[in-house]
Amino acid sequence: MNNNFNISSALNALKQVKFDLFQRDFLLTWEKEYEDIWSVLKVAEILKHLYETNNTLEVFRRGLGISWFRDNSTRTRIAFSSACNFLGLSHQEMDEQKLQIYHGETIRETVNMISFMAQVIGIRDDMYMGKGNKFMKEVAESLDEGFKEGVISQRPAVINLQCDLDHPTQTMSDLLHIKNYFGHLEKLKGKKIVMSWAYSSRYGKPLSVPQGIITLMSRFGMDVVLCCPEGYKPHQDILDKAEKFSNISGGNFQITDNMKKAFKDADVVYPKSWAPYQIMTKRTELINRGQEKGLEKLEKECIEQNSNFKDWVCDENLMSLTKDGKALYMHCLPADIQGLNCKEGEVTKKVFEQYRLDTYKEAGYKPFIIAAMIMLCSLQDAISIIEKNLKEF
Amino acid sequence: MNNNFNISSALNALKQVKFDLFQRDFLLTWEKEYEDIWSVLKVAEILKHLYETNNTLEVFRRGLGISWFRDNSTRTRIAFSSACNFLGLSHQEMDEQKLQIYHGETIRETVNMISFMAQVIGIRDDMYMGKGNKFMKEVAESLDEGFKEGVISQRPAVINLQCDLDHPTQTMSDLLHIKNYFGHLEKLKGKKIVMSWAYSSRYGKPLSVPQGIITLMSRFGMDVVLCCPEGYKPHQDILDKAEKFSNISGGNFQITDNMKKAFKDADVVYPKSWAPYQIMTKRTELINRGQEKGLEKLEKECIEQNSNFKDWVCDENLMSLTKDGKALYMHCLPADIQGLNCKEGEVTKKVFEQYRLDTYKEAGYKPFIIAAMIMLCSLQDAISIIEKNLKEF
Amino acid sequence: MNNNFNISSALNALKQVKFDLFQRDFLLTWEKEYEDIWSVLKVAEILKHLYETNNTLEVFRRGLGISWFRDNSTRTRIAFSSACNFLGLSHQEMDEQKLQIYHGETIRETVNMISFMAQVIGIRDDMYMGKGNKFMKEVAESLDEGFKEGVISQRPAVINLQCDLDHPTQTMSDLLHIKNYFGHLEKLKGKKIVMSWAYSSRYGKPLSVPQGIITLMSRFGMDVVLCCPEGYKPHQDILDKAEKFSNISGGNFQITDNMKKAFKDADVVYPKSWAPYQIMTKRTELINRGQEKGLEKLEKECIEQNSNFKDWVCDENLMSLTKDGKALYMHCLPADIQGLNCKEGEVTKKVFEQYRLDTYKEAGYKPFIIAAMIMLCSLQDAISIIEKNLKEF
Repeated sequence: MNNNFNISSALNALKQVKFDLFQRDFLLTWEKEYEDIWSVLKVAEILKHLYETNNTLEVFRRGLGISWFRDNSTRTRIAFSSACNFLGLSHQEMDEQKLQIYHGETIRETVNMISFMAQVIGIRDDMYMGKGNKFMKEVAESLDEGFKEGVISQRPAVINLQCDLDHPTQTMSDLLHIKNYFGHLEKLKGKKIVMSWAYSSRYGKPLSVPQGIITLMSRFGMDVVLCCPEGYKPHQDILDKAEKFSNISGGNFQITDNMKKAFKDADVVYPKSWAPYQIMTKRTELINRGQEKGLEKLEKECIEQNSNFKDWVCDENLMSLTKDGKALYMHCLPADIQGLNCKEGEVTKKVFEQYRLDTYKEAGYKPFIIAAMIMLCSLQDAISIIEKNLKEF
Repeated sequence: MNNNFNISSALNALKQVKFDLFQRDFLLTWEKEYEDIWSVLKVAEILKHLYETNNTLEVFRRGLGISWFRDNSTRTRIAFSSACNFLGLSHQEMDEQKLQIYHGETIRETVNMISFMAQVIGIRDDMYMGKGNKFMKEVAESLDEGFKEGVISQRPAVINLQCDLDHPTQTMSDLLHIKNYFGHLEKLKGKKIVMSWAYSSRYGKPLSVPQGIITLMSRFGMDVVLCCPEGYKPHQDILDKAEKFSNISGGNFQITDNMKKAFKDADVVYPKSWAPYQIMTKRTELINRGQEKGLEKLEKECIEQNSNFKDWVCDENLMSLTKDGKALYMHCLPADIQGLNCKEGEVTKKVFEQYRLDTYKEAGYKPFIIAAMIMLCSLQDAISIIEKNLKEF
Repeated sequence: MNNNFNISSALNALKQVKFDLFQRDFLLTWEKEYEDIWSVLKVAEILKHLYETNNTLEVFRRGLGISWFRDNSTRTRIAFSSACNFLGLSHQEMDEQKLQIYHGETIRETVNMISFMAQVIGIRDDMYMGKGNKFMKEVAESLDEGFKEGVISQRPAVINLQCDLDHPTQTMSDLLHIKNYFGHLEKLKGKKIVMSWAYSSRYGKPLSVPQGIITLMSRFGMDVVLCCPEGYKPHQDILDKAEKFSNISGGNFQITDNMKKAFKDADVVYPKSWAPYQIMTKRTELINRGQEKGLEKLEKECIEQNSNFKDWVCDENLMSLTKDGKALYMHCLPADIQGLNCKEGEVTKKVFEQYRLDTYKEAGYKPFIIAAMIMLCSLQDAISIIEKNLKEF
């Protein structure tokens, strides 16, 4: 808990800032203005403070928060459920396993059918390159049409709970964690954060976190280093965005394939495995063509390719190279912890144990980031609702 | 949204009408008096108006709304969940897949076990002819006994979310849709509605919608035409009911196997596939006897039989025959849309697209029909609760 | 409903008693002091009375109640959901089928990840001897660490919804049922209760109920008789506890393998099947070693062993031996009812039918026992919250 948090000054600061989130969705941080991101972070901190000081917000008195997980999830599902509950919404899960495959008419129709009383639809669709964000946009367009044409009388906000491209509720939780670690967003300027690939024997881990981290942290003046073996770089578009944001924020963005060089004097390290962009794209193509044998071959290739980089492990030696030997270690969890849940993995047991509780706290921002997105995207007067509640305490 | 809706006059009208729904279930519309149906429609309209004008009702402060889907469903499940949420109930799903098969003692016991704090149990059981309604009645009888004997301290209402015989929440939503299309229930008198069979390559679609439509619309003085190939007629009992209701309401009920004749000058058309009654009955018998081979054969026969009627498609030519060439097209969704989600199906893409948003709006009444049923069946003073809320706004 | 229940005197009595449940879990009744158990029973009765007299409690205004069923359950899941709803918590299910196997780090991590806004975690884990209670303790320890280290800002209570050792929400419901049958806890003194093994053709029924019954009823001065065939006795530790509690309470604890002798003059009989402790322990070992063939063999052996005791059926002859021929028959449900849902089972159809509604009422205490545990374990001022609500009526 942040005991020094001043809720009045946070609310005043918010009132000075022009953000444009009402009746919009939250899909990709790089589509949002700095002010939008800043406001979500600020509202999330206010909500977390209110929760931790045992204050209840009266936000919604009815309405559904629908979660649509196209891939299994426990943590994010319950974070979403927690956010809905905190704001007064009832959580209702779509159960993909009971549904037909969605495309075209089916999406338009289903989305309208479930939205008659929905305030928010949170979606996870992170399995296939080129699909998740596209799906979310189709949902959003269906809602736009339904709302415009009078089918639904309120427009639920669509919130990205992880797609093929970005994972905004994760990366913004990560950002709040870093912010509170250093004390202030301003203090992130010039701090070196390393988003590093790390070894895993598992196949097909999404690129959403590394892509989300380099494009988000670069907006806050950080010295962002992407470190990965040749062949594991995200799409050039994403790299260009990180570069552009760094230029605007006065930060720096660099790419290296040398983990030691990357860790040198780092303030924050985020070592995590992900699948090569090319493989993930090829995978989608094979799936689209229904080529199962090709998929098996691809999986084998990918795991073999990974195994060339088994030494990409965040261990004590690497950590000792960081600023004063004590950079903040981050992970979106669950991690492949060498000697604990795998033989060879992203991080050694010793390093992980040292930062384990920190990674739990890192995750603890997520329900509040989600709640802030819901409030700002579906309420015109989110700030005054908070103020009104405070007066009533 | 219906901007001309006058809530005071709706409430006054309700107070003039004697309905008898409290501590009853809503299983089949033909078991209900006209006044019961009328009252559910009226309360549903009031609730929809309140929702759309951002008013919140305080109805229940606690209690569960239990949904029991013995067949998969997304739309009705979320409509039920929405209705519960709107009234202040928590939605809890029974998960049939995790349950044993229910019969005899098991039903009595399970029903009591889940009802200690339940206000409503919504059930879908539409797969097997002769089973769904029977199951719901067993649930209702178990609740009667449990309530009478002091096992449960409130009697949850049982609401039919689709059975083998009827689909009241769907057909009453359809009715509200038609009513608002023509402006007033009185204006339905003499309007021609065609409940027509249409081609589908799929097996075993329930008869609940056609049976429900012809028995409900005939109570409102409509000129009801049932149109289907020989062999696809519902059970004679149902036809007799439609006939009887037509006589009482001053309407008309006819059966034809000629789609062109049926569509001629129609005001409303509802083209939809269903399985022959005989086949659905035979299917239940085979299932009861555990004859899997017989079931496969039956499915093949049914699909072959359907394929004799591939020209039973709602297309532009047929629509041009209707009143001024612009009858209201209706469907309970999802539809088999020729050229969109199937090669040959119930309706052409062009016709469907023209009425697509209308079918979405048609579905939009369902959460409010369900909510009205819950209120009227489980509260003695439903009308005064609404009035009390209005005064507090 | 108990019309003579005096809520004021119940609250006054509670204020005289020192119980120690706040920020504790409720895992095994034998770990609790008599005052703790007494207080849960008293609060459960108050809550049941309030519910039945249509009073609503304002307890929690937000927060999740998480149910974690590692084995399928409908009844207890909905009892838990009902309790959460009654207190103002939202029920969120963990879905074990969608989760990886939990051990070590995974438990610690997952438990923290789901608990950011949880007030209670209800767990059922009753399948494997030596595992369920251990799992619950690991969950509790993870919560302790998370709370202590500031990961979570409230410590959710862990409630045992059945483990390998005990089934406190069941046995305490049973106790309230007996208490209300005889009129007062004091009147249980000297009453003879027979916890008897009975025949079932099914494999692997947990020992939690018999173990829970003999250790709980012995605390209230009852004349507790455990009756089972040689080889079906619970672990000696449990028998010792029952013996010890009987000595303290002035009751009596005896073991017999003669059902007739046991039923003689009994006031209460609880005939129910369970698997031999040795077999359940061996089963866990075989599972741990992944020996599927051994497991099949064991199942066969167990069912064969059971079949030596097919005459262990609660029938009219046995019942006629009890006090005035009308002992209270109890069962945790569902029962194996001979001639109804099985050919040979725990109880005859005739005996069961006579007590059927009683067994339903027995189960009806469970939502309130759970609610009382939630209140007392997660609120410091549970009693004054109830009092405050009463004043506001």
